[in-house]
Amino acid sequence: MTLSVYLSGEIHTDWRDEILAGCKAAGLDVVFSGPVTDHAASDDCGVAIMGAEPDKFWHDAKGARLNAIRTRHGIETADIVVVRFGEKYRQWNAAFDAGQAAALGKSLIVMHGADHQHALKEVDAAALAVVETSAQVVQILDYVLNGRLSG
Amino acid sequence: MTLSVYLSGEIHTDWRDEILAGCKAAGLDVVFSGPVTDHAASDDCGVAIMGAEPDKFWHDAKGARLNAIRTRHGIETADIVVVRFGEKYRQWNAAFDAGQAAALGKSLIVMHGADHQHALKEVDAAALAVVETSAQVVQILDYVLNGRLSG
Amino acid sequence: MTLSVYLSGEIHTDWRDEILAGCKAAGLDVVFSGPVTDHAASDDCGVAIMGAEPDKFWHDAKGARLNAIRTRHGIETADIVVVRFGEKYRQWNAAFDAGQAAALGKSLIVMHGADHQHALKEVDAAALAVVETSAQVVQILDYVLNGRLSG
Amino acid sequence: MTLSVYLSGEIHTDWRDEILAGCKAAGLDVVFSGPVTDHAASDDCGVAIMGAEPDKFWHDAKGARLNAIRTRHGIETADIVVVRFGEKYRQWNAAFDAGQAAALGKSLIVMHGADHQHALKEVDAAALAVVETSAQVVQILDYVLNGRLSG
Amino acid sequence: MTLSVYLSGEIHTDWRDEILAGCKAAGLDVVFSGPVTDHAASDDCGVAIMGAEPDKFWHDAKGARLNAIRTRHGIETADIVVVRFGEKYRQWNAAFDAGQAAALGKSLIVMHGADHQHALKEVDAAALAVVETSAQVVQILDYVLNGRLSG
Amino acid sequence: MTLSVYLSGEIHTDWRDEILAGCKAAGLDVVFSGPVTDHAASDDCGVAIMGAEPDKFWHDAKGARLNAIRTRHGIETADIVVVRFGEKYRQWNAAFDAGQAAALGKSLIVMHGADHQHALKEVDAAALAVVETSAQVVQILDYVLNGRLSG
Amino acid sequence: MTLSVYLSGEIHTDWRDEILAGCKAAGLDVVFSGPVTDHAASDDCGVAIMGAEPDKFWHDAKGARLNAIRTRHGIETADIVVVRFGEKYRQWNAAFDAGQAAALGKSLIVMHGADHQHALKEVDAAALAVVETSAQVVQILDYVLNGRLSG
Amino acid sequence: MTLSVYLSGEIHTDWRDEILAGCKAAGLDVVFSGPVTDHAASDDCGVAIMGAEPDKFWHDAKGARLNAIRTRHGIETADIVVVRFGEKYRQWNAAFDAGQAAALGKSLIVMHGADHQHALKEVDAAALAVVETSAQVVQILDYVLNGRLSG
Repeated sequence: MTLSVYLSGEIHTDWRDEILAGCKAAGLDVVFSGPVTDHAASDDCGVAIMGAEPDKFWHDAKGARLNAIRTRHGIETADIVVVRFGEKYRQWNAAFDAGQAAALGKSLIVMHGADHQHALKEVDAAALAVVETSAQVVQILDYVLNGRLSG
Repeated sequence: MTLSVYLSGEIHTDWRDEILAGCKAAGLDVVFSGPVTDHAASDDCGVAIMGAEPDKFWHDAKGARLNAIRTRHGIETADIVVVRFGEKYRQWNAAFDAGQAAALGKSLIVMHGADHQHALKEVDAAALAVVETSAQVVQILDYVLNGRLSG
Repeated sequence: MTLSVYLSGEIHTDWRDEILAGCKAAGLDVVFSGPVTDHAASDDCGVAIMGAEPDKFWHDAKGARLNAIRTRHGIETADIVVVRFGEKYRQWNAAFDAGQAAALGKSLIVMHGADHQHALKEVDAAALAVVETSAQVVQILDYVLNGRLSG
Repeated sequence: MTLSVYLSGEIHTDWRDEILAGCKAAGLDVVFSGPVTDHAASDDCGVAIMGAEPDKFWHDAKGARLNAIRTRHGIETADIVVVRFGEKYRQWNAAFDAGQAAALGKSLIVMHGADHQHALKEVDAAALAVVETSAQVVQILDYVLNGRLSG
Repeated sequence: MTLSVYLSGEIHTDWRDEILAGCKAAGLDVVFSGPVTDHAASDDCGVAIMGAEPDKFWHDAKGARLNAIRTRHGIETADIVVVRFGEKYRQWNAAFDAGQAAALGKSLIVMHGADHQHALKEVDAAALAVVETSAQVVQILDYVLNGRLSG
Repeated sequence: MTLSVYLSGEIHTDWRDEILAGCKAAGLDVVFSGPVTDHAASDDCGVAIMGAEPDKFWHDAKGARLNAIRTRHGIETADIVVVRFGEKYRQWNAAFDAGQAAALGKSLIVMHGADHQHALKEVDAAALAVVETSAQVVQILDYVLNGRLSG
Repeated sequence: MTLSVYLSGEIHTDWRDEILAGCKAAGLDVVFSGPVTDHAASDDCGVAIMGAEPDKFWHDAKGARLNAIRTRHGIETADIVVVRFGEKYRQWNAAFDAGQAAALGKSLIVMHGADHQHALKEVDAAALAVVETSAQVVQILDYVLNGRLSG
Repeated sequence: MTLSVYLSGEIHTDWRDEILAGCKAAGLDVVFSGPVTDHAASDDCGVAIMGAEPDKFWHDAKGARLNAIRTRHGIETADIVVVRFGEKYRQWNAAFDAGQAAALGKSLIVMHGADHQHALKEVDAAALAVVETSAQVVQILDYVLNGRLSG
């Protein structure tokens, strides 16, 4: 069994690298995908390729629709969608991804600190697991794949 | 043609009433649904009916899952989902609803002020209309139903 | 909003009547469906209409497939599926209905006593509400429809 | 043609090993999946990874939802779902899996002893084959793959 | 509960009228649909409306595709599809309708005499009921709707 | 049986009115929908409601996405989609609607003059009927509903 | 591009071998599947594995449902379904397969002699190609894969 | 991540070759498909394989339905559908393909010159990217796959 896992959400800490390293160390059969994590490229990709826009709304629209080619593909082909909410920013795109994953029947894992618990209650309620750390995500993938409780 | 419209998101201003009044005044054939907007009832419904929980996480889980019976039904049976982002709170549930609506192929209308433009770019990019006021939602519904530009 | 509710499971107590009476008393806009609750008719319907079978397996197969015309229709057209597990019998058909409801994305409410908690953990985990009494089901329907916490 | 087969249900006898050994001996092109069969791990996985719960209901909910990541993936990606009902326990999860498989249009094979015939009539009625032994499952897979009646 | 029933197949006896009369006599809440049963109109509708064709293949293609507007609509919106195989003709369109109904997950009732039993075994195997007479169809609809065994 | 029919395509002749009048005269049980046929309103609706755009591309994008709320709803809820290609303009939106209708499994009727035959061969090939006049559409609807060949 | 092709229908001539040989000779990238073509095994597989039945109806039911595991898998995973109607027998299973293929949106190729043209008009009308010979099927697959008209 | 890309539309310039060469040069993991681009073969394939037709309508119908086996397969299995509108011809098949892609939820990229902007506004409005050159398509695929802005 190979699991396809999409890693959505916060892009300013190295949580994705931690999960990849943990899964590699455990020898897990997982294929990862996720959004473009270069913040500047993600913001400007639309106008860089398709031409500048004087209005910020259309600048953003061009980029967001271009990024959607990648994110929709990742979510639609994933078995599991992990969505991490960090400490900063609005992160509405993370919740938006979680909503898409839920509606598509994907197994949803939500990752956030205790301070966001009440605000994320609707998202957590749709999840099959709610965790705080990258290590827990690795443990879950190890258990799902191998029935192994490594902790 | 009757349109079924789900009004998601912010619950602390009277934007829903404005839309309902506007549609009534214009004689539009629209049926509205939406979440429970009594904040206290929405937070406590789970434990009120199914028993208290000492742990806030499960208190919230019980309520959020119970509310999901209503919100999923509303979104799944809607032709159009309007999601409003207000000035306060995290509003992750609004973005989560928008993600569900997008994945289900619903026509999505997003309503927010200019200050949230950049943070909502992924949600706006999935929408068929982005507006600021309740009056604009009424105008859109009037146009969609009757081909009338009332402005 | 009208809710369509399928009442699956145990057929030897009057829990369905309690829910119907409770919803009627509360004036709720609910349409109910459910299996044939006449145990003898349900067991013998196949052979009664399509001819006797000497082998009990085919006697039961004829009846079960005939009953499936009604139960599938009820589950597929329901917004909410309530599944009650009683004190007696194997009740595998109740769990089978719950599995169908879950896979079809129906809102699932499970109703059972505390003694069945561990054995039903997979079914409960797929539910949006787990209750013990008919009165709680009525309260849930009242809340989902009207946002009212009658308790 | 490779067949993907999910082996659901009873975890206290070695029927899965018998099927795997039989298919291997016959050189069949089958890929198997199934639930975690370590009973203790399956019961405690949720709290082991995501933290202890004083209330047994939530202890079980955490585990059951975590196990659902694996079982849903297995059932959804299977061509054939085999569900075995053994002699002991309630086995509602087995019937729940069978219901999911039926609703998803999977080819369902049910395996049980004669004493459970009447209680399983609804599940059997949804199946394409009803058998008693592991050897019969191997014969079926051999026939489906190769058109060979090995008996 | 209203049932929508499509009556497919043989058009040279009055079995449809028998079922309609029987359901009316029993006061059943059923809505019927079916193909055009005027054989000449059904054969020639395409060329009558869209112009003559010298080649019989295209004469038939025009008619068959036009009839498909009605038959697909009937099958797709039905809860139950009844397919009757009579004594004469090839009746491949009846088996074709049954295949569509099966693939769409409709409840399938097959009606035929004992002499066709072996030739129809694949169709019967996909059905929830196999009967010989119109009266049995009425009894089934009465049972499915009202849980009543009128026989 | 009520048929829901979406009338897509050319908006500069009165073919829609002819079909409506013909169906009314024949007493047919048909409900019609279609795009906004006021050319100016259709072009400018987006900026009229949501604010002017200096760039024609975004002016058109706003309008086209707003019109999509109406056209998608019409196509998705239709039983039959009639697409008319007239003599003038590119009419790519008509072919685009036909593609959506085909992919959604709608019964497609295409209406055009003989001079467009070769250029429309892919669209015609997906249709269940190809006609030249409004009167033929009325005859088809009469036949589909009533089995009547009025010509 | 690899094409997956299901070869349904008549099992008493060597048309399947002709197609396989033709595709091999042309070096086409095609994977074939089909029903069990050993008539005796296909008729008796159910009772051979799951036990004898005194009643021919259940003898056939057991076999037909077992064969359905293979045929449904083949049809559901195919890109193209070729259905051949031969000279003998009722061949209702062939038309039943064609109906399933049509409802699942598969590309349907029908193969039959001129004498069956009128009786198969509904099946032909749902097909993307109607041919008489195995060589034509090979030519079609060659064209679809390589854009080559070998004739 | 491998992307599957269908290249629809104009067949008289070498834009497909430019995209293939550009992706090869950039080392992108993309698999391409598209229609048969030999205009004569595409027009005549039906009659070449299945026999001549005196009537141009049926000549074209045979070819268009045969080509649909390839084009539907390509669109349905693609992650991204690129549709190019050139300078000449009606190109209704291109818009028809775009409509299919949109209804199937594919990521749509539209490629055309500025002069077609207004006429293509409905198609552009359904797209995630609108470009003018093959080089831009390569840049988009590079960005979607690798997050790289090569420009």
